[in-house]
Amino acid sequence: MFMHNKKLQYTVRVSEPNPVLGSFMLEQFGGPDGELAAAMRYFTQGLGEDDPGRKDMLLDIATEELSHLEVIGSIVAMLNKGIKAAISEGDMEEAELYMSLTKGGDSHTQAILYGGGPTLTNSSGVPWSGAYIDSRGDPTCDLRSNIAAESRAKIVYERLINVTDDPGIKDALTFLMTREVAHQKSFEKALYSITDNFPPGKLPGKEQFASVYVNTSQGDGDAEGPWNSGAEWDRIDDIAETLPADGGDGMASVDLSGDQLDRVKRLAERTRSDPDSDPTTGADLAAGKGAGRTKPVELAET
Amino acid sequence: MFMHNKKLQYTVRVSEPNPVLGSFMLEQFGGPDGELAAAMRYFTQGLGEDDPGRKDMLLDIATEELSHLEVIGSIVAMLNKGIKAAISEGDMEEAELYMSLTKGGDSHTQAILYGGGPTLTNSSGVPWSGAYIDSRGDPTCDLRSNIAAESRAKIVYERLINVTDDPGIKDALTFLMTREVAHQKSFEKALYSITDNFPPGKLPGKEQFASVYVNTSQGDGDAEGPWNSGAEWDRIDDIAETLPADGGDGMASVDLSGDQLDRVKRLAERTRSDPDSDPTTGADLAAGKGAGRTKPVELAET
Amino acid sequence: MFMHNKKLQYTVRVSEPNPVLGSFMLEQFGGPDGELAAAMRYFTQGLGEDDPGRKDMLLDIATEELSHLEVIGSIVAMLNKGIKAAISEGDMEEAELYMSLTKGGDSHTQAILYGGGPTLTNSSGVPWSGAYIDSRGDPTCDLRSNIAAESRAKIVYERLINVTDDPGIKDALTFLMTREVAHQKSFEKALYSITDNFPPGKLPGKEQFASVYVNTSQGDGDAEGPWNSGAEWDRIDDIAETLPADGGDGMASVDLSGDQLDRVKRLAERTRSDPDSDPTTGADLAAGKGAGRTKPVELAET
Amino acid sequence: MFMHNKKLQYTVRVSEPNPVLGSFMLEQFGGPDGELAAAMRYFTQGLGEDDPGRKDMLLDIATEELSHLEVIGSIVAMLNKGIKAAISEGDMEEAELYMSLTKGGDSHTQAILYGGGPTLTNSSGVPWSGAYIDSRGDPTCDLRSNIAAESRAKIVYERLINVTDDPGIKDALTFLMTREVAHQKSFEKALYSITDNFPPGKLPGKEQFASVYVNTSQGDGDAEGPWNSGAEWDRIDDIAETLPADGGDGMASVDLSGDQLDRVKRLAERTRSDPDSDPTTGADLAAGKGAGRTKPVELAET
Amino acid sequence: MFMHNKKLQYTVRVSEPNPVLGSFMLEQFGGPDGELAAAMRYFTQGLGEDDPGRKDMLLDIATEELSHLEVIGSIVAMLNKGIKAAISEGDMEEAELYMSLTKGGDSHTQAILYGGGPTLTNSSGVPWSGAYIDSRGDPTCDLRSNIAAESRAKIVYERLINVTDDPGIKDALTFLMTREVAHQKSFEKALYSITDNFPPGKLPGKEQFASVYVNTSQGDGDAEGPWNSGAEWDRIDDIAETLPADGGDGMASVDLSGDQLDRVKRLAERTRSDPDSDPTTGADLAAGKGAGRTKPVELAET
Amino acid sequence: MFMHNKKLQYTVRVSEPNPVLGSFMLEQFGGPDGELAAAMRYFTQGLGEDDPGRKDMLLDIATEELSHLEVIGSIVAMLNKGIKAAISEGDMEEAELYMSLTKGGDSHTQAILYGGGPTLTNSSGVPWSGAYIDSRGDPTCDLRSNIAAESRAKIVYERLINVTDDPGIKDALTFLMTREVAHQKSFEKALYSITDNFPPGKLPGKEQFASVYVNTSQGDGDAEGPWNSGAEWDRIDDIAETLPADGGDGMASVDLSGDQLDRVKRLAERTRSDPDSDPTTGADLAAGKGAGRTKPVELAET
Repeated sequence: MFMHNKKLQYTVRVSEPNPVLGSFMLEQFGGPDGELAAAMRYFTQGLGEDDPGRKDMLLDIATEELSHLEVIGSIVAMLNKGIKAAISEGDMEEAELYMSLTKGGDSHTQAILYGGGPTLTNSSGVPWSGAYIDSRGDPTCDLRSNIAAESRAKIVYERLINVTDDPGIKDALTFLMTREVAHQKSFEKALYSITDNFPPGKLPGKEQFASVYVNTSQGDGDAEGPWNSGAEWDRIDDIAETLPADGGDGMASVDLSGDQLDRVKRLAERTRSDPDSDPTTGADLAAGKGAGRTKPVELAET
Repeated sequence: MFMHNKKLQYTVRVSEPNPVLGSFMLEQFGGPDGELAAAMRYFTQGLGEDDPGRKDMLLDIATEELSHLEVIGSIVAMLNKGIKAAISEGDMEEAELYMSLTKGGDSHTQAILYGGGPTLTNSSGVPWSGAYIDSRGDPTCDLRSNIAAESRAKIVYERLINVTDDPGIKDALTFLMTREVAHQKSFEKALYSITDNFPPGKLPGKEQFASVYVNTSQGDGDAEGPWNSGAEWDRIDDIAETLPADGGDGMASVDLSGDQLDRVKRLAERTRSDPDSDPTTGADLAAGKGAGRTKPVELAET
Repeated sequence: MFMHNKKLQYTVRVSEPNPVLGSFMLEQFGGPDGELAAAMRYFTQGLGEDDPGRKDMLLDIATEELSHLEVIGSIVAMLNKGIKAAISEGDMEEAELYMSLTKGGDSHTQAILYGGGPTLTNSSGVPWSGAYIDSRGDPTCDLRSNIAAESRAKIVYERLINVTDDPGIKDALTFLMTREVAHQKSFEKALYSITDNFPPGKLPGKEQFASVYVNTSQGDGDAEGPWNSGAEWDRIDDIAETLPADGGDGMASVDLSGDQLDRVKRLAERTRSDPDSDPTTGADLAAGKGAGRTKPVELAET
Repeated sequence: MFMHNKKLQYTVRVSEPNPVLGSFMLEQFGGPDGELAAAMRYFTQGLGEDDPGRKDMLLDIATEELSHLEVIGSIVAMLNKGIKAAISEGDMEEAELYMSLTKGGDSHTQAILYGGGPTLTNSSGVPWSGAYIDSRGDPTCDLRSNIAAESRAKIVYERLINVTDDPGIKDALTFLMTREVAHQKSFEKALYSITDNFPPGKLPGKEQFASVYVNTSQGDGDAEGPWNSGAEWDRIDDIAETLPADGGDGMASVDLSGDQLDRVKRLAERTRSDPDSDPTTGADLAAGKGAGRTKPVELAET
Repeated sequence: MFMHNKKLQYTVRVSEPNPVLGSFMLEQFGGPDGELAAAMRYFTQGLGEDDPGRKDMLLDIATEELSHLEVIGSIVAMLNKGIKAAISEGDMEEAELYMSLTKGGDSHTQAILYGGGPTLTNSSGVPWSGAYIDSRGDPTCDLRSNIAAESRAKIVYERLINVTDDPGIKDALTFLMTREVAHQKSFEKALYSITDNFPPGKLPGKEQFASVYVNTSQGDGDAEGPWNSGAEWDRIDDIAETLPADGGDGMASVDLSGDQLDRVKRLAERTRSDPDSDPTTGADLAAGKGAGRTKPVELAET
Repeated sequence: MFMHNKKLQYTVRVSEPNPVLGSFMLEQFGGPDGELAAAMRYFTQGLGEDDPGRKDMLLDIATEELSHLEVIGSIVAMLNKGIKAAISEGDMEEAELYMSLTKGGDSHTQAILYGGGPTLTNSSGVPWSGAYIDSRGDPTCDLRSNIAAESRAKIVYERLINVTDDPGIKDALTFLMTREVAHQKSFEKALYSITDNFPPGKLPGKEQFASVYVNTSQGDGDAEGPWNSGAEWDRIDDIAETLPADGGDGMASVDLSGDQLDRVKRLAERTRSDPDSDPTTGADLAAGKGAGRTKPVELAET
């Protein structure tokens, strides 16, 4: 069960209201790498997890991310405090209020639709989606996804820090950014304390294709590096020659029953595009300036 | 800041795994009236709220809803515990596993994509959306939205209770359902302790239209009730006669500059559909069996 | 069946084109509280409704909301009339046209993608979603949802009125805003003319939890009011002490068959994060500046 | 303005409730080619249209499509009438009710979430989206899009007719299907009565590329037909030889200021993947069974 | 199988970075009529197609559209090259960087979230959706949808050309625009080389409704043209008189079993809105200034 | 530029049509970890990439993933070949066709809406979303995201292999699964050949918080492991005591101008919920059985 203390995990001191900056900050509130995504990612993993160590870690970090959601949401709320009152009280000149909504970003939607409250959208107003959560119920995948997610969150915080000179905001964002680094370290430890963490899962795959690099993009700019060359790799450069990889005919086929086959043939016949035809098309009519004619064209003999 | 205790707010005892039932339960986990929607609705309102009483109440209830998310998510996890292991370990007959995924609902996606973990989708697999949150930053709206949301959540729990005979699940769902009723009562109290709660906002509107009922749907089935008849209502039955409501011409107009007007006219001329034409169309060609012809049709003179 | 008269329900007189303002107005055209949402909310309820009074009312109001969709859409069309011709005719200096698209909001998308027509998105360009409709097929829920929706629509109109000084737009918006108040009154009457409208549905719930207030958010700022205190409420302040609410162990459990249990154990063993390990991680490698090394590290003995 | 008569445009006679079939029918209620999409497609075009003939036609057909939405929605409501009462009244055996929700399709969501009402989703429960509307504000595009949309709607009705043997449903669906054909004919006439309807818009393009067919997919199965061969087409078979089409170097470039260039170089340097390195990776650690080691690996010298 | 050459199909020469213009260009990268939508539309049709001529054509054009995706994406990448380095390196004054993100459009999200890379969203930041693909598996529909899609893509390119004066961008966009025209011509040829391409599908429909035009929108502005008048059309002007079209009662009905009927009746009774009641509502309480009262109202006798 | 050979990268041999299995396979066609997501992830990264080695690798792998999209899409097409013809030709008994659509999964939508073609949705019919692509324009993030994505794709293939006994499908899926492993290895090599790959970005963070583990979830089940204990970690167990982390007051504040402050106060006053009130609410009315009363209640004195 969750409990809450009204103190924030980190104090938020904002110099002055700025709804445009507030709308940028939404990226870490309701954006794909934001704190709700982080919290829900770990919380849902934690609920489905049986491993006692991982379950505890996931719930710890999920709970902290909820607390971060509160910090970033409080920054958004402070930045919107002026516009919230202005659009609600309606006691400002319309032209002045209008101008304050056209200073950039999507702060207009924040004001008009959401009334200046922090909202679960990204900085373009796109609603948060459950599809941001890429948990798959396998710890060797999920921990890698968590590591990647923390690295993304770190970078987005870094960018937000780069765009504001408000010292209080910079300070709080730097705290949040640092915690993402700590979380990434925890997830790394948990991943590597699983003995068989690579490749994920149980099925071994086809050994002959596991170290092949297929050089499908060629021409100027072809390059080599440890990711495609060296002792660990078999490299295929002549794609056409080696197609398909299994030595078959490279076609797709399915066995149909007699009824099915008959029906497939009837469908094919009915909807055939005749390659030997030379049809007049709607575009031909248009190109011939078909409008204004007084009666349908006489169709040529077939 | 949030804290967490690993005990659930209510004990979850599930009789046996049933992933189909688990996918139904997702409605209250990642569905539009589910516990995440409830928690986020109140949490985001709470962050933007300055009224001390409402802020405290919103954070209290948000925190409890997170705890409910944990309870319903635990039910989902228990119901999927069998399929999670089966699809991961891959040691069941394929045909048997396949059959277990075709027993109804969208449990197949739960198993294949999410690996049996609780996921932020509804019972059809639709990802949770930030658009479920209809907070508008005005308490006389938001509290009404909260009241409505609690009433919806109550009904959806009732339906879930109606479809299962597992006593442990019924018990936990009934607890959750009851809490929605309590929350609705809190929101009602908070709304009615605002002196000017109706109509919402400040602007008075046009008095002459505030008690008019427009009977736009007529014919057999026309009915009367306190919602459209009686001393409080002016009722308009003859729509066409009273159109438009303002006594104007009922048209839409805009003043254009000379340049704008010229451009609008040029656009209109260029894209005009000539009402006096009698064109042959693509469909006419088709109806005339246009394929297979050996050359384009001779176009009739214009 | 629907019929249509080309006169608007209210005359629309716009002073001059302004696509940025037009994009703000989309909030009530294709936004979550806009007129399409209103119309579809009541229309779909009306189709599923058997109660003759409510069915008639829902179809009346749905039809009027469609007429409001036409009014607000006409405002949008007028505000975009200049940019529509400009971007289609392409006879304006590119730099001038470019500048007209960077004056704020999301009017650029309106122009480039939608060609200046009214579109079913909100003011941030988010497409209208069927998920905005929260009808649940129970009148005591649906009427509450309708009441809340009307209150939200009233507020959003109020905000739009606050941001423009065009008198014709203000006039038409005020009409539309007023009608939302009238509709809210109708829905209130219909709700309270249902005898058993609270709590919604049939199932009674657990009496002992129906008047409990759980004070989950504590610390400075804890407050009391009629929503959590007084004779109607039992209040729980010591959360940890009373956990779980049912007196059980607060754990989630499920009975598994022998086969299921074996499989769950195998999965747990295979994917265990060893708490006693001290693994080197990918991040450790990076922190040690792993790049540029000429061969894989020698792994320490286990 | 819209008005409504409670008679349907076509009488709906359903033989017996069948919520699974009802969920299939949603395809034409809240699906991408359904009647709401049709109505909104033409309605939004009509609002932005100045050509008097097209405006009238678009509003006529939009209004009829709304009436079709009512017909198909009524079919859905009838098919769900049994389950709606069952799930609301809760007086059926749970096991029996559960079974009725697992008979296929997504009818479970219809029942549990939407209470048996017609909902704006498709047959998989995906909410209707404003993105279904592809109006672009140019009549030579929009009429082609309308023609295509009517043809799609015709086919989907045909498939729904094929899956049911309920004569009343077949009858009503056949009426609706037939009307799509009539609408397609109207849109064809309107398109071809525009003199310059192809190519759309004003800009002429580069003549030398307008009749070129690029044979990018080669190998067995290469075919010829009037779409890529004959006097109207220049055909390119040797792609690599003719790359790029403009005779340039086929690269992408941008002129940067000195500051920008410096910054780009610093970024490149900082994030360079060294092609001459031979790094140990996280996966290498895993492959070496990194877990359980008692201390971090000794990193080899760089 | 696909292969790739690092040369673009058309050389991209951008004069200077401009992230706002870059965000506009996204319309053809990740927007509904953009190149990914085109490529996927034809690719998925091609995979499901058996007709050898169409299959080849669809794969040819799909492959070319992927190459166009590369061209437009390269334009976006060049336009963002400056901001990408600036936001990553963080060595610019915060205020200056902030200002560069508020110059219009949604370029702020491009920078902060996507780091200046080309992203699969439209110019408002709306993520690309599989719902943009309207393939239905019937060639007489799909080819019409393709024709319409190409016409839309042509227009959107035309608009983008109209808003920039960068000659290199204009040049590349004009090439891409021209190719859409060529593709439209191919799809027209393929459609009209199907003998029975109208109406789509096999079912004939009800002859008596196939040439009826229903004049549902009346009043000033009613118009005639070849789309609703002339020998090919039967026109209905008196809607109410001819309702319903089938001569039935225009009602919706379903046969219920005895059990079902009983349950429906109980539900109706339980949730009836009493038309003869005169209830006090929540809004009435509010209008009476209900707040601040010291105890619940005494309810009047029923 | 892309080119295409009609041979598949791997031969597809399907034993018999099975549209339900086909709908499961969609997970790797249009699902979040499917081949389109993979291709677009690497392709968009490649377009924005300047590092020659990574650019080449990203385009190589993107091109191969497109070829995998073709393989999995061909499997889907084969599995649907029977239903495609059946629903198009309409020459099967309706009841039989109906039954074939209710065998599980979401194959009904595949048949009715998409006509049996492979579609860009997941196995629940959710359309593919550009939001699946989590590229951030920083290689130390993006390569980690790619590593995670490959690990997820590997697992989902493994699950699909586990649910079918068709040897041809198993064979092709195993090939595709193996290639994901190879790709993961390439991305690992590319990541670790960046010297400064951890933490991502440039900003150092606050050292004092970078190795802190906050034990926010307590109670039974608290655990220790290398992710939260040992020399590398400072662990905080007493949350309340250490709140907030910065030693401030843990509150959120913003400096407002005098005008702003006045307006905020007026808003607060106008919308205050009076904690000392004892209001009658709408729910109180309902609980008192308010319906059927013949006149509004007399409101008690305040």
